[in-house]
Amino acid sequence: MHMHSNLRSIQPRNGSSDEGKETMSGEFSRHKQFPAHGVIFFEGDPASNIYEVAAGSVMLYKLLPDGRRQVVEILGPGDLFGMPAGDIYDVSAETLTETLVHLMSRKEAETSHVMQEHIKKCLVSQVQNLHEHAVLLGRKSAHERVASFLMRFVPSRGDFACIGPQEDADESVVTLNMTRQEIADFLGLTIETVSRVLSDMKRRKVITMEKQDRIRIMNVCGLCHLTGKY
Amino acid sequence: MHMHSNLRSIQPRNGSSDEGKETMSGEFSRHKQFPAHGVIFFEGDPASNIYEVAAGSVMLYKLLPDGRRQVVEILGPGDLFGMPAGDIYDVSAETLTETLVHLMSRKEAETSHVMQEHIKKCLVSQVQNLHEHAVLLGRKSAHERVASFLMRFVPSRGDFACIGPQEDADESVVTLNMTRQEIADFLGLTIETVSRVLSDMKRRKVITMEKQDRIRIMNVCGLCHLTGKY
Repeated sequence: MHMHSNLRSIQPRNGSSDEGKETMSGEFSRHKQFPAHGVIFFEGDPASNIYEVAAGSVMLYKLLPDGRRQVVEILGPGDLFGMPAGDIYDVSAETLTETLVHLMSRKEAETSHVMQEHIKKCLVSQVQNLHEHAVLLGRKSAHERVASFLMRFVPSRGDFACIGPQEDADESVVTLNMTRQEIADFLGLTIETVSRVLSDMKRRKVITMEKQDRIRIMNVCGLCHLTGKY
Repeated sequence: MHMHSNLRSIQPRNGSSDEGKETMSGEFSRHKQFPAHGVIFFEGDPASNIYEVAAGSVMLYKLLPDGRRQVVEILGPGDLFGMPAGDIYDVSAETLTETLVHLMSRKEAETSHVMQEHIKKCLVSQVQNLHEHAVLLGRKSAHERVASFLMRFVPSRGDFACIGPQEDADESVVTLNMTRQEIADFLGLTIETVSRVLSDMKRRKVITMEKQDRIRIMNVCGLCHLTGKY
């Protein structure tokens, strides 16, 4: 794995900025490497640091006392986390793949105007993503949830800026980097339902399974129309 | 209705601040009054203004093309809304009751350091509430969802700072100010399920119905234990 292949960075606002590169690596004082499924912090831990995903992937989740789990966010390079309202983290953070994070203390972040601006920008996106996810959890069918989830991995397609099919074969191969249980816990489904829906999509030739966590979408437009969004 | 009874305001940070009062009324240049069920803006409208609830109550919702609706947030005095990532609102905003809002243009907000600070603080709380709501939508049973919803109206009870029962009769009368359909759309349930759960809670003497949208919780601790949180 090339840990830095996804790493994007921008100059502080008074320097020259690189279009489309939006992380703040220059601002962070420390970094830390985690293996896949490494715990970065637990819900309830003292919220001492703010983190940025530099490379890899992180899930944020909450547990109910009886063990039910809801994955509330899935984060990638450039995303910030670890900014609760109070003194303790309101979620647990665990890596999905080998992950490099940048970190700084909350105190450091509070004294940096550049960071405060950046945090605000990230929070606005986060709120918008959480609104979208509330619609998925509250109102979408199991098929629509799984289709929406798979479309996350084809970022150039499916929203207002969709570039449309680029070739005759409208295919895309996606690597999930998540177990069926993690997907179920993100989509508010059971593991059995996730497997059943994937099997059904396979039977209907919307997808083929290349490996356990590697899926070939056979018809991106077709899958997109299953998301309930159009 | 006393429109200003719930209105809280603080001085700008360089002035003297009033403990526990957290709105920014002094910062806002304009205000506007809406009747109950008045539309403040629609999803997709140009996002020209930032709003604060001064008095009353506002719901934010998203629609799927076939008309399914998810209420993603319910806001009260002091809450901000209308801060999408892009140039258009990502949700619709509609009042639940007669409501007074403060507003300012995004441009004004961007040039005010005090507002930027305040927006950041509000976004952090919003993210935390949306995490909590994702758990409700993704993992809670219908009974747990309705119990959690009712507990929202007893803010001094049910979290880590719960003050416990204050009298022998652990009762509380709550006014919902929401239709059954709005409650269903917030909790990711059907209107029939909301009614069925409320009837069941009534039968089990957890609540009594004073009016259609006025409920007496007969045992706050008992209801709290139905939320799935403890």
